[in-house]
Amino acid sequence: MKKLLLASTSTVYGGTYLSYLRDELSNFFQGTNEILFVPYARPSGISHDEYTQIAANFFQQLNKKVVGLHTFVNPKQAIEQAEAIFTGGGNTFVLVNALYQLDIINSLRKVVLGGTPYMGTSAGSNIAGQTMQTTNDMPIVYPPSFRTLELISFNINPHYLDPDPHSKHKGETRETRIKEFHVFNNIPVIGLREGSWLRVMGDEINLKGEFTARWFEKDKEPIEISNFDKSL
Amino acid sequence: MKKLLLASTSTVYGGTYLSYLRDELSNFFQGTNEILFVPYARPSGISHDEYTQIAANFFQQLNKKVVGLHTFVNPKQAIEQAEAIFTGGGNTFVLVNALYQLDIINSLRKVVLGGTPYMGTSAGSNIAGQTMQTTNDMPIVYPPSFRTLELISFNINPHYLDPDPHSKHKGETRETRIKEFHVFNNIPVIGLREGSWLRVMGDEINLKGEFTARWFEKDKEPIEISNFDKSL
Repeated sequence: MKKLLLASTSTVYGGTYLSYLRDELSNFFQGTNEILFVPYARPSGISHDEYTQIAANFFQQLNKKVVGLHTFVNPKQAIEQAEAIFTGGGNTFVLVNALYQLDIINSLRKVVLGGTPYMGTSAGSNIAGQTMQTTNDMPIVYPPSFRTLELISFNINPHYLDPDPHSKHKGETRETRIKEFHVFNNIPVIGLREGSWLRVMGDEINLKGEFTARWFEKDKEPIEISNFDKSL
Repeated sequence: MKKLLLASTSTVYGGTYLSYLRDELSNFFQGTNEILFVPYARPSGISHDEYTQIAANFFQQLNKKVVGLHTFVNPKQAIEQAEAIFTGGGNTFVLVNALYQLDIINSLRKVVLGGTPYMGTSAGSNIAGQTMQTTNDMPIVYPPSFRTLELISFNINPHYLDPDPHSKHKGETRETRIKEFHVFNNIPVIGLREGSWLRVMGDEINLKGEFTARWFEKDKEPIEISNFDKSL
């Protein structure tokens, strides 16, 4: 059974790395001793080792060992043998490019659909969708494709931001950007605010955290949802 | 001689479309009767006709006719015969994709380097750089390449936004995004604030408008510049 935990952000305002998810992660990774960490999104360009260490420092509190995917000679085999997988945030273009260069998109998809628990934050959640086309990131590298893991039937916009009514800035709001996405694409999009996450168990999806989420479909007005029901 | 006017935004807070640039445009397009408008960035997904009409309405005040590139059977010929060219803002991915589909990147580059005056706002300015990789836009379509017109030796980040010291949002600041660009790329980047524009005459570049701009180079701390000098 598919088991996903897809968070908008790794860190909320005033908190430390993953601190707001501590109880949820303790529950989600129950029975897991070792987590395979996918460090390729490289936030601020940090190295794979440095990034893996940040994740390892947090999970030490939960008595979980974290190993970086970049340390394996055979990454496909590492994915197939992983007890659980966590993809950290950073730049989605850099992440997706690395997944294609290493030819591990299909392996990741296969093991997660087969039941290996998968956790993502930010870019790591974005890639669980159909495509990476609702990322907020800058296209600093050119990946071979925008298609991603297709673990869920919609796309995620992490770090979703409501329009600021006092803003004097004329750049597009997040809502405008997602509506533009729907001029060219049919895939529904969830705008997931910082502090929100999705917990997926098989076909059941739950929105967790203290906020509602914004749900966008082509040719429809966006709506606020407090959870998923059959009408989605 | 190369003649460019590259604006961060078409509209500033409190103004109407291009109103803050009226005097500058009157000067820049002196002697021009007809402007070829490139409508492909489609802000909010509006049609090419609608977008061309918005530009035409403004330029009517300056007694200039505006014709949409999309109305020509042979766009390459239209570009070669244009008195002047204006590319409007919107989504840079959509714009660049269209330029490649129509195979007009090289034609545009050639005529502008040959002296056809070129004006851009937002996405239309972004494509004057070496690549579109410092756009702020969402990757809603997949263009065949991120390479753009290479009319200037650096990249532009339009709508440049300073970090908000009071923000509780954990998404990357603009500065962080551009620094991440420089982990993977060497091209210098100018962060052009709304209300600023570049006026290029041959090899001479002038920063205009009321603000300084932020200049980013790989492995250097970003600096504020009030204009261009030989040290750049």
